[in-house]
This record gives sequence, C-alpha cells and structure tokens, in this order.
Amino acid sequence: MRAYDIIAKKRDGLVLNESELKYLIDGYVQGVIPDYQISAFTMAVFFQGMTNDETASLTKIMLESGDKVDLSGIPGVKVDKHSTGGVGDKLSLIVGPLVAAAGIPVAKMSGRGLGHTGGTIDKLSSIPGFQVQLSTDRFIKQVREIGLAIVGQTGNLVPADKKLYALRDVTATVESLPLIASSIMSKKLASGAEKIVLDVKVGSGAFMKSKDDAFQLARAMVRIGQDMNRETVAVISNMDEPLGNMVGNALEVEEAIEVLSGRGPEDLRNISLELGAWMITLAGAAFGIDEAKEKLASFIDDKSGLNKLAAMIRAQGGDDHVVSDTSILPQGKYVSRVYAPQSGVLSEVNAHQVGLAAMTAGAGRSTKEDNIDMGAGIKLAAKMGQKVKKGELLAEVYAESTEKAQAALNILEQAYAFGEYKEQPMIFGTVTSRDNESSA
Amino acid sequence: MRAYDIIAKKRDGLVLNESELKYLIDGYVQGVIPDYQISAFTMAVFFQGMTNDETASLTKIMLESGDKVDLSGIPGVKVDKHSTGGVGDKLSLIVGPLVAAAGIPVAKMSGRGLGHTGGTIDKLSSIPGFQVQLSTDRFIKQVREIGLAIVGQTGNLVPADKKLYALRDVTATVESLPLIASSIMSKKLASGAEKIVLDVKVGSGAFMKSKDDAFQLARAMVRIGQDMNRETVAVISNMDEPLGNMVGNALEVEEAIEVLSGRGPEDLRNISLELGAWMITLAGAAFGIDEAKEKLASFIDDKSGLNKLAAMIRAQGGDDHVVSDTSILPQGKYVSRVYAPQSGVLSEVNAHQVGLAAMTAGAGRSTKEDNIDMGAGIKLAAKMGQKVKKGELLAEVYAESTEKAQAALNILEQAYAFGEYKEQPMIFGTVTSRDNESSA
Repeated sequence: MRAYDIIAKKRDGLVLNESELKYLIDGYVQGVIPDYQISAFTMAVFFQGMTNDETASLTKIMLESGDKVDLSGIPGVKVDKHSTGGVGDKLSLIVGPLVAAAGIPVAKMSGRGLGHTGGTIDKLSSIPGFQVQLSTDRFIKQVREIGLAIVGQTGNLVPADKKLYALRDVTATVESLPLIASSIMSKKLASGAEKIVLDVKVGSGAFMKSKDDAFQLARAMVRIGQDMNRETVAVISNMDEPLGNMVGNALEVEEAIEVLSGRGPEDLRNISLELGAWMITLAGAAFGIDEAKEKLASFIDDKSGLNKLAAMIRAQGGDDHVVSDTSILPQGKYVSRVYAPQSGVLSEVNAHQVGLAAMTAGAGRSTKEDNIDMGAGIKLAAKMGQKVKKGELLAEVYAESTEKAQAALNILEQAYAFGEYKEQPMIFGTVTSRDNESSA
Repeated sequence: MRAYDIIAKKRDGLVLNESELKYLIDGYVQGVIPDYQISAFTMAVFFQGMTNDETASLTKIMLESGDKVDLSGIPGVKVDKHSTGGVGDKLSLIVGPLVAAAGIPVAKMSGRGLGHTGGTIDKLSSIPGFQVQLSTDRFIKQVREIGLAIVGQTGNLVPADKKLYALRDVTATVESLPLIASSIMSKKLASGAEKIVLDVKVGSGAFMKSKDDAFQLARAMVRIGQDMNRETVAVISNMDEPLGNMVGNALEVEEAIEVLSGRGPEDLRNISLELGAWMITLAGAAFGIDEAKEKLASFIDDKSGLNKLAAMIRAQGGDDHVVSDTSILPQGKYVSRVYAPQSGVLSEVNAHQVGLAAMTAGAGRSTKEDNIDMGAGIKLAAKMGQKVKKGELLAEVYAESTEKAQAALNILEQAYAFGEYKEQPMIFGTVTSRDNESSA
C-alpha cells in the first residue's frame, strides 16, 4: 500500500476502505507519512467528500489512535453534550447542573476556546480558585459523589485528530463535513459517554453558515454515533446573534448563574431546557421532551440546579459564594459603550462581529499562546428585533485597558444593522439516531 | 499576505493575482512556506484549475526563480523542440540534425528518462565516449561551430519547478493541465529558445490519454508562449503504439541513424519531417510546411542530416563511426521473444506496456537512482494493423540477464490484442500562436 495511491483514489472520487484509511492515519500519527501527503489528501476530501462508511471508518481509526476514558466506574447512563461552537454559548454551565440535578451523571471534558468562540474551560477558570485540570481518578470520584464534573481533557485522547486538525487549520481544509464530523465524534467517543446530545449551531456566529450544511453535519454525526452504538441526537440551533446577553468568561458565568437562579434571558433558558431535556430523555429519566423540560424547569425553580453548580465549584476548589454573589468574579476595569446611531428596529446583531469584538477586548485567544483577560467581554443591552431610539445604549465593552476597550468598540459597532426584522426560531430542527428528523 | 488565504481562495474557485502566486512560489523556494501548504494548494488547483492569466503568471514566476540560458551569442533564430514524452520517442536525434542541416542552430538541453518513457540524454549516452554534460560556454561554442548540440541541463534552471514537481509527484497532483503547462513552458523559456515546437503526445503510452486533454494542454502552452513573446506551435501526435520499432537507448540511436540514412520505419520518418518542418518554418528557413518537409527530406537523401549527427557526436567526444556501423553500440546479451499466440490482425500494441517491458528489461529507471543497461530494450517485429500468423515473431527483448529478459517478456505479452483495427492518423492536429488550429 502507498499513500500516493490512496490520495489519487480519493482525488478521483473512488471510495476508500477502512484499511486504506488506517494505513494513512496511523502512518501519519507515527510520522511515517509526511504532512504534505496528508494535506493533499484532506484537500482531495474537501472536494470529493466521504461516504458514510468512510466517515465512520475514519472516526473509528482516530478514536483508536489514543486513550479512551473509562466511565464504567460511574453508575447510571452517562450522557455527554457537545456544541459546535457559538458566541455567548454558556450552555454547558447551565445544562450540566440541571441534568445532574435530575440524577443523571454528567462527566464532561471540555476544551479551551480559540478564535471568536469561547471555551467552557476558560469560562470556569474565571471563578476564583476553580481547578479545571483533575486526574482521571479524581474526575470520576467527583462525578460518583456529586454527579457533576467539568474538566479539561485528561490523558492522550485522539492524538490523530490533534495532529490532523492542526494540519487542516493551516491548509484551508477544516471546512469539510466528513472531516468535521469525524473530528468531533472521535473526541466525544473517546470521552466515554454512552449517549450524546449535539448542539449544531448555524448562523453568522457559527462555523456552519447555512442550515443545509448544519443538517448535513448533524446527520453525519448522528450516523457515526449509530454506527458506534452510541445513541446520538443533534439539535440544530440558531447562532445569528449571540446567545443571551453576555459574551466573555466571567460575564458568561454570571449569566449562567442568572438562568439557574430563575432569571436571565429567555433564549438562553429555552435552549438550555431543550438540550437538557434531550439528555435526560436519552438517559431514560423522562418519557418525552415536554415532560423532561418541565422537570428541568422545576430544578431551576427549586434551585437544585444552582446547588449542583455550587457543589461542583466547591469540589473543584472554587469559591462557591459566586452563585449568590457574582461580584466576586473579575470584571474589566475599563468600559466603553455603543449607542444606537439611529432609531429603528435592530435587524442584525451579528454574532461573529460580537465574538471578534469580545476577543479583541481580551476575552479570547487568536493564537493558542494568547492570554485571556477573565473579566473582559461584552454586555448586550439590546437584541435582534428590538426597537431602539437614537442614542439608546446597545452594548457595553469591558476590558483591562482603554486601548482594548476602544479596539473592541470599533469592531462591535460593525455588528449592528437596522431595518426589517423577520423573527427566526431558536431551534431549526432535530436529527435523531432513529433517523427521525423534524425541522421547524 | 498569508499562504492560508491564497490556498482558501483557490479552493473556493477564485482567481489569484500574480503577487499572490509569487508570494506562494517564492516563499516555497525560499523554504518559508512549507511543503504541506503547497501540496494542499496544488490539490486545490487540480480541482479548480487556473485561468490563462494565472497559468502565464505561474510560468513567469517559476522562470524567474533561477538561471536563464543566454543563447544570444549564437547567430540566427534559435528554435527548440519539446516532447511531452512517449515510448520509442527518438525524434530529437533525427529532427535536431535535420534542422541543423537546414542552417538553423539547434541548442538543445534535454532530460534523463524516468518511468516508462526514455530520455534523449540517456539515449545519447549509449554512444561510446559521448559526453552529455558540457559547460555552457562549450555548449554555445559547439552550436556556433557545427550548428548542433544536445546536452544535459546546465546551470540552476527553474528551481521552483524542480521543487514543485518533486512535491506534486508524491502528492498525486501532477495531473493538472495548468501545472503541467507551466512546468514545461518555464523550462523551455529558461533554456533560451526564441521559438518553440511542442510535440504533445496522446494515447496509451503518453501522459495525456485523451485527445481533448492533449489539445487543451497544447492550447495552454501555446498561449503561454504567446504571452511571453516566444512563438510556439504544438503538434498533437499519436502515442497509442510505440514510435518506430525500437525501444531502448542504444536501439533507439540505431533506429535514428536508420531514418537519417533513408531507411527506418515510415511513422518515425513522417513525424520527424513534420516537427522539423515546423521548426524551420518558424525560423524563417521555409515558407510553408510542405516546402519545409521536402527540404528536410532532401537532407535525408543527401546524408547531410546524418553528417550533422556525426559532427555532433565527434564534437561531444563520441565515436562517430556509429553512424555507419551501429554494431559498436552496446546490445543486451540475452534475448527473449514473443510469438503471436493466434492468427489475426494486431488491434493493439500498447505503448505503455511496451514501455514498462523495456524499463523492466533494464532500459529505464523506476527511481532516479536506478542504473540503465544501455543495450537493453525491445525490437518490435509487427505493428498495429498488421496481419500475423500464429507463431509469427512479434517482438524481441534484449537484456543483460535472463531474469530481466523473462520479466520483461511477461509484461510485453500483455501489450498485444487481436481483433478489428481502425487506422488512426499519426498527427491529430496543430495549435499555433496565431490561434489557428487544425485538427485531423
């Protein structure tokens, strides 16, 4: 077998078998097959795509390239949640505690953020004292004891994906549905969950810009889950404007606490309940989405979700007073403000622009080495569809220097447009393992 | 400017400007842009193609990456000939002397062979004493004195193409028309010719398998020549069966001498006259192809072409007795023979198979490091369309060991098919700078 022939086969639109894919990926991880052959291959995949079987094989091969987390020491059905990434996406901080409150163990490994979307691990790091790196043993012990842990990745999970993603990232071959699907699913499968709920975001602030692409990606990932005997559901949700009103690490922790306290913005509450409902339904703790949502809503009302969050913060060394007093979180010293330049209806609050502005304010990384200002970010005072008057406050930028606040402001001002607004649903549809697909 | 953005732009089907291509190619030659970005780029070009302007820019950038041969010290119009490669293609050994006999200087740099097609330089090396590496000064002096020199490449010509071709060769991105066209033309332009005649071969033994592709490649190259103010003509010729009857280094020198002596196979003589006629017409030494052919035919009849070859061999240190006594050429010690397994009409003598068989016999290299047996090769005793009887001799294999002779035989036997034969023209058409195109 030669790498050359495998590349040429894919280039010419032929289907690769599992042993060919394995030869390529294993050879790459072992350093036998060079970068330049793999980047030619991923570009060929960009143009020719992959069949379902090829995508499933690739996922399996990547999954087998490293360690797998063994969650069998935790009783109950382990359900994981994954988001393809959006701006203001603090859903794990809300959904995790609510699902744990329902008695379903949540053992979640999460990533750091890069680019215009933030990472859950960065957000949690803004809580004074909070430890994101636990040993696997301590991670599992914590989930057994309190039902909830959110930590950075432990062990050498999916090294093939790490190496492949780094290469795709510099060769313009990230944007390939089968490569995205296998990358996400290999990591989820390696994290040990038995059931998986995927939040596939679509819109200006998401990786997927079109609903068609988002549904295709969702189908590809659900099919992989099915092939690997892990029931998987994908919810396709709207990311045209930021989720909730807060973007930035400490600010998003604050807003998650708001929602778990029964306050907070409605869009954020609704999608939290939807995703959580799928999780506990898959785990067998509810008989349908509507019942599940009611159940989770009751865990907001009786504060048991908030208490779970506090328990997790405590267990991971953080100051759990934060759940009743968010003023202990860091906050950017300098504030700049965007005011409405005209009266009218906000037809756009572009999530991508808001994400870039938050990153510029100091809330995110443009390269892996960048430092984050935990108190930096953006508070939106108005959302899409809202009628505003000229001079009314649209948003506040928090930053650690006036320069950063001003630079962020310059970007943030580009996020707004006025005109006609057509209301869009928050959730466009769902793809399930049973191949039942509903779309709004 | 970032390599990433240029790759993404090509991937998405947008047109690159000259400064973007220059950034990429110069950066690659300087080692600033890594292999893995360039191979992703060439794969994107494979799928998205290049406009005429892009192809011309790429050619110019590659041309400027290294030395250029200065032929201005040679009086007269310098015309070069290039073949895209075929099996049994010893045309340069015939056309060069004939054109020189017409008083048109031929200063030709040629390559070594790789794969199933042989290189002119290897063929000449089979002549006892013949030197293929001359200094540029001696090369030019020889052309001034006798009007003809064929040598290996001197100087650092088109290093960008060397590096790019080596990468394309291992990433399945050789097969891209604009990349092939710019690779060939940058080398021809760097070799210093003012006018260029291209022999674009099409068929089983050629790189181009379809006439459409061959004409497209021809048009792309002629257009580049035009853009660079070097009048260029491309002849599209048939390479379904080997050219002439001999394949192998010494055997092809022998057959070239046969043609220059007024003997030798008709197909070889005809295409030699056609290509030579275009060369002397472009150089202004004839007023039309028919007149030019007659002129060149007279240089066969009066042996002035053969005398030019002898003069070149002498000037380059070789034994010029070879032109009257080819028995001084090396010949493989072992012979194996293919006989017709049935009676009937030969519907196929597959050039690719014959080329592979010759390589296996020892006449070619499968890797750059392989040694060549100068006396190895194949003598065809029957050509396509010929009626043969069961048991009649089809071909002889010459090799330096019985093992090589037998291995070659096993491949050669696959080259033959019997059945209906439809005669094909030797020349399918011509593409000229004046955009006049004729096709047979």
